[in-house]
Amino acid sequence: MNTIGDKLKLTTFGESHGVAIGGVLDGFPSRFRIDFERVADELRARAPQSETETMRYEQDKVEWLSGIMNGVTLGTPIAFIVRNNEHYSSDYSELEHVYRPSHADLAYEQRYGIRDYRGGGRASGRETVARVIAGALAQQWLETQGVSIIIDIKEKKDIPAGDSAGGRVNCRIIGVKAGLGNPVFDKIQSQLASSVLSIPACHGFEYGSGFDLYGSEYNDQMRIEDGRIVYLTNHSGGMLGGITTGQEISFSAVFKPTPSISLQQQTINDKGENVMITVKGRHDRSVVRRASVVVRAMAALTIMNYYL
Amino acid sequence: MNTIGDKLKLTTFGESHGVAIGGVLDGFPSRFRIDFERVADELRARAPQSETETMRYEQDKVEWLSGIMNGVTLGTPIAFIVRNNEHYSSDYSELEHVYRPSHADLAYEQRYGIRDYRGGGRASGRETVARVIAGALAQQWLETQGVSIIIDIKEKKDIPAGDSAGGRVNCRIIGVKAGLGNPVFDKIQSQLASSVLSIPACHGFEYGSGFDLYGSEYNDQMRIEDGRIVYLTNHSGGMLGGITTGQEISFSAVFKPTPSISLQQQTINDKGENVMITVKGRHDRSVVRRASVVVRAMAALTIMNYYL
Amino acid sequence: MNTIGDKLKLTTFGESHGVAIGGVLDGFPSRFRIDFERVADELRARAPQSETETMRYEQDKVEWLSGIMNGVTLGTPIAFIVRNNEHYSSDYSELEHVYRPSHADLAYEQRYGIRDYRGGGRASGRETVARVIAGALAQQWLETQGVSIIIDIKEKKDIPAGDSAGGRVNCRIIGVKAGLGNPVFDKIQSQLASSVLSIPACHGFEYGSGFDLYGSEYNDQMRIEDGRIVYLTNHSGGMLGGITTGQEISFSAVFKPTPSISLQQQTINDKGENVMITVKGRHDRSVVRRASVVVRAMAALTIMNYYL
Amino acid sequence: MNTIGDKLKLTTFGESHGVAIGGVLDGFPSRFRIDFERVADELRARAPQSETETMRYEQDKVEWLSGIMNGVTLGTPIAFIVRNNEHYSSDYSELEHVYRPSHADLAYEQRYGIRDYRGGGRASGRETVARVIAGALAQQWLETQGVSIIIDIKEKKDIPAGDSAGGRVNCRIIGVKAGLGNPVFDKIQSQLASSVLSIPACHGFEYGSGFDLYGSEYNDQMRIEDGRIVYLTNHSGGMLGGITTGQEISFSAVFKPTPSISLQQQTINDKGENVMITVKGRHDRSVVRRASVVVRAMAALTIMNYYL
Repeated sequence: MNTIGDKLKLTTFGESHGVAIGGVLDGFPSRFRIDFERVADELRARAPQSETETMRYEQDKVEWLSGIMNGVTLGTPIAFIVRNNEHYSSDYSELEHVYRPSHADLAYEQRYGIRDYRGGGRASGRETVARVIAGALAQQWLETQGVSIIIDIKEKKDIPAGDSAGGRVNCRIIGVKAGLGNPVFDKIQSQLASSVLSIPACHGFEYGSGFDLYGSEYNDQMRIEDGRIVYLTNHSGGMLGGITTGQEISFSAVFKPTPSISLQQQTINDKGENVMITVKGRHDRSVVRRASVVVRAMAALTIMNYYL
Repeated sequence: MNTIGDKLKLTTFGESHGVAIGGVLDGFPSRFRIDFERVADELRARAPQSETETMRYEQDKVEWLSGIMNGVTLGTPIAFIVRNNEHYSSDYSELEHVYRPSHADLAYEQRYGIRDYRGGGRASGRETVARVIAGALAQQWLETQGVSIIIDIKEKKDIPAGDSAGGRVNCRIIGVKAGLGNPVFDKIQSQLASSVLSIPACHGFEYGSGFDLYGSEYNDQMRIEDGRIVYLTNHSGGMLGGITTGQEISFSAVFKPTPSISLQQQTINDKGENVMITVKGRHDRSVVRRASVVVRAMAALTIMNYYL
Repeated sequence: MNTIGDKLKLTTFGESHGVAIGGVLDGFPSRFRIDFERVADELRARAPQSETETMRYEQDKVEWLSGIMNGVTLGTPIAFIVRNNEHYSSDYSELEHVYRPSHADLAYEQRYGIRDYRGGGRASGRETVARVIAGALAQQWLETQGVSIIIDIKEKKDIPAGDSAGGRVNCRIIGVKAGLGNPVFDKIQSQLASSVLSIPACHGFEYGSGFDLYGSEYNDQMRIEDGRIVYLTNHSGGMLGGITTGQEISFSAVFKPTPSISLQQQTINDKGENVMITVKGRHDRSVVRRASVVVRAMAALTIMNYYL
Repeated sequence: MNTIGDKLKLTTFGESHGVAIGGVLDGFPSRFRIDFERVADELRARAPQSETETMRYEQDKVEWLSGIMNGVTLGTPIAFIVRNNEHYSSDYSELEHVYRPSHADLAYEQRYGIRDYRGGGRASGRETVARVIAGALAQQWLETQGVSIIIDIKEKKDIPAGDSAGGRVNCRIIGVKAGLGNPVFDKIQSQLASSVLSIPACHGFEYGSGFDLYGSEYNDQMRIEDGRIVYLTNHSGGMLGGITTGQEISFSAVFKPTPSISLQQQTINDKGENVMITVKGRHDRSVVRRASVVVRAMAALTIMNYYL
């Protein structure tokens, strides 16, 4: 469904070309002062690059509907929406009857028997606006616990005109205390993987490093130095048996190439005919930079869920 | 906690050196005849290789406690246990006070303040016995829906004596119908990743292929041929936007080297002293072959959960 | 938390004197045409009586944010809000420091360490606006399955000026098919009770009748007549062992007197002083009529959850 | 399904005439020493009266399968079973084709298409053995928090031979701290009602008292005396707005007459024929005394779930 988390629950709603995108964040602690400017920063980081570069970008404006009184959380559900602008309402009528390759158009129609063809409906990257807003709140709260999240990306340069490419997001979570998580099914790495793979275009999750090594090289040996536990390496990526070790959490996520390209492709329409398609509009050649902001948001929501 | 799934729920219990390992499988359809020999086959496939090779292996014996009458399911919870033999009760007393490198020993003590030091408790690979039994039932049910699961493995040869290595499990799920899964957070790839990463020693999950390609090469173009939808490629691994496409599902899981090695390593004990350790006992040099049986089980449970 | 249901999930949000009250209804089937006028009817039935009687009532206006395109559901989350008017923003400043007897004021402060004193926050009856909207959609859907819900009320007449009284809501659910529900913990009566007792001021739930009878008088004996099963009585209230029998479901809910009265009462303030209070404003002398609309909504949501 | 609770999860399994009845209790804190004799006491209190009176009662013997090492909890799932004796295996073959009035026989067959006719399967009161065991653990833990649970019953005397009657269980929970619970859907009274109504034969739940009073008589007025909050009455039954007030929690549950009676009744069989039935075997004339032990268990599990 459209909810993630158990102690900190985020429910998102909204079609990419409907009235609004929004979310309800339930379980956020009371009496926390929100820094709204920091939320705006995260939304700006998620915005299409061309727009931010040319300063023509009009920031997504968040309407806060509940859960906050005078800038302070009440402990009740925090609901918020971002209205969809004209900006996003370009002409999608030519997509009403055709299925874009490597988009979810056909799969959704097979699932629901109906779809909002105007830009992907719920399958659109625009849904992640709600995640980024909620994640920005989670990041602020985590900082009060000494936790910070750092991302960097690897992506192709010089993508040929009209084509696209994928890439990889690396994420480090610093300052997480030891002993968070659960053994067996609710391992912290299971929840991180589930969160990260729920991001559109994400195809993989991997934590730690050195899987090609022999055990004797791979194992994170330990020493006591000056009364503190010191790990000689961190191939485990900060998690063992589903539980944090107190070392830095490190993971990476792989993203496929943006499926929207202006080059001609073969596909089919809803009459069962073979047709050619070129996807119009200004699309990102690589989704990786914008996706990395969503990775940070999902990591923050997941880790905060374990702290509560 | 110790439960996975929502429509088909598996709860497992049991410490590796306690009385028994077991599970409760809730939500399994009524009036299904179980092939108990097939369950035994899966347990045999999961057994330590040395034992199966030399025919000395004494098969884990399943006691079925509920949910089945005259070999047919009742629709009520199916509970089962496998008792732990003397076989598994070798002397662990020397591990009572020392933390093995890249095991969860220390993390668990940080989490619970107590641990069953006799072989890892719940963190042991032995817990997966319950998953394999439940997965064997799920596989049987899926076959009635035309679904089958094929695994193959990549692992190092010629691992030096006393050391260990990791590897990769590839999994193909054939015959899954289109339209299974959900958009946003409950994507089918999210649940598969969560399931697979809950397997001990698993460090990564990836579905589909070709992430280094350009979009024009990567996208799975479509044709209608003889009235049927034909995909020219399957880089999407059978899932788009969280929903199955009707193509074969393909994913891979990466496993770290078995942390139990007989070579000397540095570590610490519970008095905060630096000590050396060599882990005794007959341990697998590579966990990949046995883990692959658990991957098949978890894949079956996850896919069946979406069918129900 | 603020979510109910598992297949049909309603999440509500909003403080009674904040920006808006709203909800997200997730799991509602796709391709269902909504009758918005019927939703307005339910909201009108829930409105304060004085206002509807004098025709001064300005109807709560629903803003639909997602999940619906051209009046038809998409299968995606249906989000909606109702903004809070000036009408509700009367002066509550004198309640900032005093705890009203038999209101949740003090309990909330003990729970959260903060509260929105302006009319009860989430504990206000105003939160039920979101339930009534969602319930109106559920009722429409249930009617396509032949299910209808009938309520009637018992309340005191001639309540002395300035005082209040409670009463009872009887609910009959007609046309529910046999075989819905689950044994053990997820009994249909358990879920109905949980739903109904979540309504503000509700103190009890009872289904069926005749508990003072002897077993020989109480038992619902059965006959086959003209090939159909006929029950001679329905003391079981349509549910046996957690599962519907196909008979009419009947239950009743008891409500306490409205705690807001204009008579003087003893209470305390947040400085730990004894004070007297008279609760001002136009309050219902009995909440039963309005509560009955919420009972109908919760019954509809609960039964629809089992149908899905 | 067969699981209750979210932080403290109880899953039960077992047919009344299968191999065993059992449960898995997940989330119980680690390092708690179990008093096994107290568990036996609760099982003895739940036993059929005739047997305890005549000292012929052979106590249900609990096999502990996991989660406990040397009498102390590990924080891992606590699994246990009680095997079903010959004692319970009396001849049920004559019930294979006939549906007992006001039992769940017919409803279950409509739900599952199959049933274990030997004594009700999961719908049997015998399933409550697992609840009583788990509840006994919860009671022990709650006592360390200063919480105790007191039950008393009201039932008919002099029930005519061969007939049965119902009654009422009153429950008081003493020492619960203020501020437990949640507003809106997860109210503590909602969860208590759901738990209690999941007990076989339970038809109603009511908390507090005085619903016929006027508000001015009903409201629980407050005073500060000697620096402490004193409520003049407790009509609210210890819960306001879904949250505990720190006063004693009081509720009652109503139970229907035992449906198994030896008097002749009309019913139908699975060939669609009208038949007469007399239910043989030694059945309780009133289930109330035994049910009260289960009420205590469910109350303990529910309250402990909120403490965790």
